[in-house]
Amino acid sequence: MRLQCNLLERMREFDLIKTHFTDWSTNCSNLKLGIGDDCLVWQGDQPLVISTDTAVQGVHFPEQARPDQVASRAFLSALSDLAAMGASADFFTLALSLPADLTDHWLSEFAKQLRVLAQQYQIVLAGGDTTRSKLITVTISVHGCVAKPLLRSGAIAGDDIWVTGRLGGAAAALPTILASYDETSGDANLGTQAVSAKTSIPSQWLNAYWQPDIPMLFAKQASSLLNSAIDISDGLMGDAGHLARASQVDLEFDIHALPLAEQLQPNVPQHLALALAGGDDYQLCFTATKAARQSITLLAESINQPVSLVGRVVRGNGDVRWYDGTHQIKPALQGYQHF
Amino acid sequence: MRLQCNLLERMREFDLIKTHFTDWSTNCSNLKLGIGDDCLVWQGDQPLVISTDTAVQGVHFPEQARPDQVASRAFLSALSDLAAMGASADFFTLALSLPADLTDHWLSEFAKQLRVLAQQYQIVLAGGDTTRSKLITVTISVHGCVAKPLLRSGAIAGDDIWVTGRLGGAAAALPTILASYDETSGDANLGTQAVSAKTSIPSQWLNAYWQPDIPMLFAKQASSLLNSAIDISDGLMGDAGHLARASQVDLEFDIHALPLAEQLQPNVPQHLALALAGGDDYQLCFTATKAARQSITLLAESINQPVSLVGRVVRGNGDVRWYDGTHQIKPALQGYQHF
Repeated sequence: MRLQCNLLERMREFDLIKTHFTDWSTNCSNLKLGIGDDCLVWQGDQPLVISTDTAVQGVHFPEQARPDQVASRAFLSALSDLAAMGASADFFTLALSLPADLTDHWLSEFAKQLRVLAQQYQIVLAGGDTTRSKLITVTISVHGCVAKPLLRSGAIAGDDIWVTGRLGGAAAALPTILASYDETSGDANLGTQAVSAKTSIPSQWLNAYWQPDIPMLFAKQASSLLNSAIDISDGLMGDAGHLARASQVDLEFDIHALPLAEQLQPNVPQHLALALAGGDDYQLCFTATKAARQSITLLAESINQPVSLVGRVVRGNGDVRWYDGTHQIKPALQGYQHF
Repeated sequence: MRLQCNLLERMREFDLIKTHFTDWSTNCSNLKLGIGDDCLVWQGDQPLVISTDTAVQGVHFPEQARPDQVASRAFLSALSDLAAMGASADFFTLALSLPADLTDHWLSEFAKQLRVLAQQYQIVLAGGDTTRSKLITVTISVHGCVAKPLLRSGAIAGDDIWVTGRLGGAAAALPTILASYDETSGDANLGTQAVSAKTSIPSQWLNAYWQPDIPMLFAKQASSLLNSAIDISDGLMGDAGHLARASQVDLEFDIHALPLAEQLQPNVPQHLALALAGGDDYQLCFTATKAARQSITLLAESINQPVSLVGRVVRGNGDVRWYDGTHQIKPALQGYQHF
């Protein structure tokens, strides 16, 4: 399918794939056939849930990001959608577009990190496609199973609203991350510790950007307790709106209950904006009845998963409201861009 | 997940998707949930087969290709992998990376053509992702069902070797297609007829490039008759090698039996090279016992699907041999690059 056909280059590509992406674990009994034929083959009893995410160099990760960082961001952002369905992580496909001058070392480091993550989350690489492009582009489709998928449309008036993890850290780290690349004139080897030490921003912010903890285990184990869930990687404000409209309810949030990232304060408009609209938090917003409150708390504690009760679902038509105590407020959303 | 967060741009994107990609047919009973949640949800009894293909601007299609042409090439090249498994076409996901300055008209034409193809092949758009990039990049994952997937590894010594359609046309058209963009200084509106009339190359070559007929129906109906199959879009020579190695057999082809595209002759080395290594032929190579020969021919005739008996499977270890009558030949593969 190439404009410039080059058999040697193609063969090199097959070799690259063979070198870096085969002989991985294939421990997924429902995956009948993985890499190596025209399609992968899957058969299972439970519903299969699938999500696709693309990460583009210079858009979703900095031009000079390290290969392991690119792998982490691309993979974890996709995985987060499985968590939002309460699903297990079973297998994924990888469509990789790479510049011709990319080194073997880059691909090797990328593959190594992806393999680490695949092992950590027990998910099998089952297929994919490698092509040339001027820009590194990574499209990952994740596949998982769940008896009763958690939908955006399941929130019921009277439900509690919860979020996992902490909010705003990834967006707060971004200006520093971008500046660190400028200052080092293309030295892409600055790790989290180096950037953190140099700039004195919390290392948790950097981890939220580069190595978010996806609440897979919690979502899977809690799914029967929950009424609805959504991934909030586009920002809680926008994503809560999706959930509210899908469920045809209104959502009311208490900004002081929001689990803001380290050093962020709900009463500082730019901080609140980072948490509500900065994006890049691969966490969940979910709703559940009040009766489930204790079970959720106990489960979360037992697996060391931070969760916060942040609001309530009321009757309505899809609106989201924010409260500072008893006062309704309208968060200023543009501020964080200049943070 | 953006480096430059822009809520307005994001909202415009949601609107674009809503405008162009929703309200499509969702007539697939096993698709429990399509676009609109964190994941799509699928549940069925038969094995699910999945393949992912990426098409990059300037690599897999010319920079100035029309949006309908981009849609056709990206979609049909992916679909071809389902045919190679003997599967039905059930649903697909679309990961679209688009430059910021792309017009609504472009996206509208792209979506329109994709919808036409989805209707033609009775396949449902079930999910996806839209992102910014400097280059148009289209990743399509196709999903289908088949009770017993047709594998590359099923060829048996004694089998006949067949191919569908005609070979070499798409690769033969490519220089003319690229030249047509140069001559028209970016006028991307030259259709098949205009290019064909102007350059006097066969319109079938252009159709093979822009609108290949994927042998979906034949592959699905014939699958129980066949022992193995592979998509030959990377060129018959390379792909036959994959099949031979996967099946641990040798393949022997008669070059005079190959269904070369219009005006191509097996004895002209550059023509033969186009057919064997030019690529872009979204056809199948498959094997079946001699006992199935008549049934295959009758089925193909009944649905107007060209098929050709082109060789035989013999015992071996994965070699592919080419015969001009009784003489074994070694096709000169580099020639076609200068055709």
